Amino acid sequence: MGRITVRRPVLRLSTTGTGARRPDTLAVEEPLEIRVAGKPLTITMRTPGHDFDLVAGFLAAEGVIADAADLTAMRYCADTEEQNTLDVTLAPDVPAPDDSMTRAFATTSACGVCGKSSIEALRADRPYEVADDPLRLTPGVLAALPERLREAQRVFDRTGGLHAAGLFDAAGTLLAVREDVGRHNAVDKVVGWALRAGLLPLTGHVLMVSGRASFELTQKAAQAGIPVLAAVSAPSSLAVDLASDTGMTLVGFLRGDTMNVYSGAERIIR
Amino acid sequence: MGRITVRRPVLRLSTTGTGARRPDTLAVEEPLEIRVAGKPLTITMRTPGHDFDLVAGFLAAEGVIADAADLTAMRYCADTEEQNTLDVTLAPDVPAPDDSMTRAFATTSACGVCGKSSIEALRADRPYEVADDPLRLTPGVLAALPERLREAQRVFDRTGGLHAAGLFDAAGTLLAVREDVGRHNAVDKVVGWALRAGLLPLTGHVLMVSGRASFELTQKAAQAGIPVLAAVSAPSSLAVDLASDTGMTLVGFLRGDTMNVYSGAERIIR
Repeated sequence: MGRITVRRPVLRLSTTGTGARRPDTLAVEEPLEIRVAGKPLTITMRTPGHDFDLVAGFLAAEGVIADAADLTAMRYCADTEEQNTLDVTLAPDVPAPDDSMTRAFATTSACGVCGKSSIEALRADRPYEVADDPLRLTPGVLAALPERLREAQRVFDRTGGLHAAGLFDAAGTLLAVREDVGRHNAVDKVVGWALRAGLLPLTGHVLMVSGRASFELTQKAAQAGIPVLAAVSAPSSLAVDLASDTGMTLVGFLRGDTMNVYSGAERIIR
Repeated sequence: MGRITVRRPVLRLSTTGTGARRPDTLAVEEPLEIRVAGKPLTITMRTPGHDFDLVAGFLAAEGVIADAADLTAMRYCADTEEQNTLDVTLAPDVPAPDDSMTRAFATTSACGVCGKSSIEALRADRPYEVADDPLRLTPGVLAALPERLREAQRVFDRTGGLHAAGLFDAAGTLLAVREDVGRHNAVDKVVGWALRAGLLPLTGHVLMVSGRASFELTQKAAQAGIPVLAAVSAPSSLAVDLASDTGMTLVGFLRGDTMNVYSGAERIIR
């Protein structure tokens, strides 16, 4: 399923003068080129493994596809040994991404771009709505998620170098966990797994991330129709703006018995 | 100088049932569109502030410019209130970036891309060499860097949501520190500051980052001629490969009195 970790020699030093050579386990980072109908679209640095999920989730986040039927096929290019180029065949009725797609934002024709206009531009392209999602959760269910995610993070314990994303149902049951050197990749892999399993939109689900909640991660959750995003660390200002705008529940600093609810508090049962 | 933090209301909850509304300080995240001679090049999500440094460092990392003389002017577009579009004028003899630039990797004409070929492709474009840099450091000098970086991170203490990068000289003196919601932005801001101050190549300097060492951060250090990259957390496999290939010293898990040296150990005095 991919080379997730690799062993390398390391010199362990201390200021007291001791030093020892020993092998260390590193998280693998390699480029993956994504092609659509043979045409190079983008290259992302990722941890190999679950590449089909990664590509499906990436295309969903970018608004190219919205469900499993939009994807006809994915295959690694066959003329190299490395599985670092993946070619996607879209369904006949799905428009191919244009060259501006990877810029991630529609810029206004006037000179200028701001957070608000970015959010407005993205809203038009969103395939699913989360504002009316009836999911309700107790603080206790949310507080249990970090530990469950951590337990499922097998690789992190060996390298200390991987981000994780986990998808949970309303009862707090972990459905899928993915790890990657890039936190956006970890989310793409989870969403892509769900898309390929026919689960989009992810009504009634919770996405949990091991780090911070950025605009980009919040946008990925919105694109997949996820009503609750929970993060171990801090959200950014624009993540909060986007969550508020879409009616998503955004929880940050989810640690121990406490959490900060930045938007959508009506989904938390008190 | 930019809106680095913003206050937002937050609901602080605990599983014991207590809940309180209070204001919370968030790290600001906003898009910055970078244009060259009026033509949109890319949009990056960043924390406002030190935008000129960010753009200069970004262009250096991408190989568009190599020193201050390559930059004729930078200005915010004047027809919007938000300072979120920055236009760059390159010196007449500096070729404008082509459309493929932001893809960050030269893909081979054959079907396939791998870590090794990426590193090879980048090597040809590197303006400075670090392999022969005579910098030597004691473990004690390195061990003191995280605390100095942390002390200079004024914003982190308020938000818990910012990455930091710091540039140090051979004695461990902090020359510049920059913070951002994006860790690559923090490094771009530090390198851009140095470029604009006429300090490139950064021979004899140490770059310290608050998180992990990815391929991208290592590449940015190499482009600026920095011989030593130190990180609080883990490096990725491709970061170690690139550091070894360029002759850079890469130190990870720099915490307390200990550190892991992944390449270039000859620069550490034992």
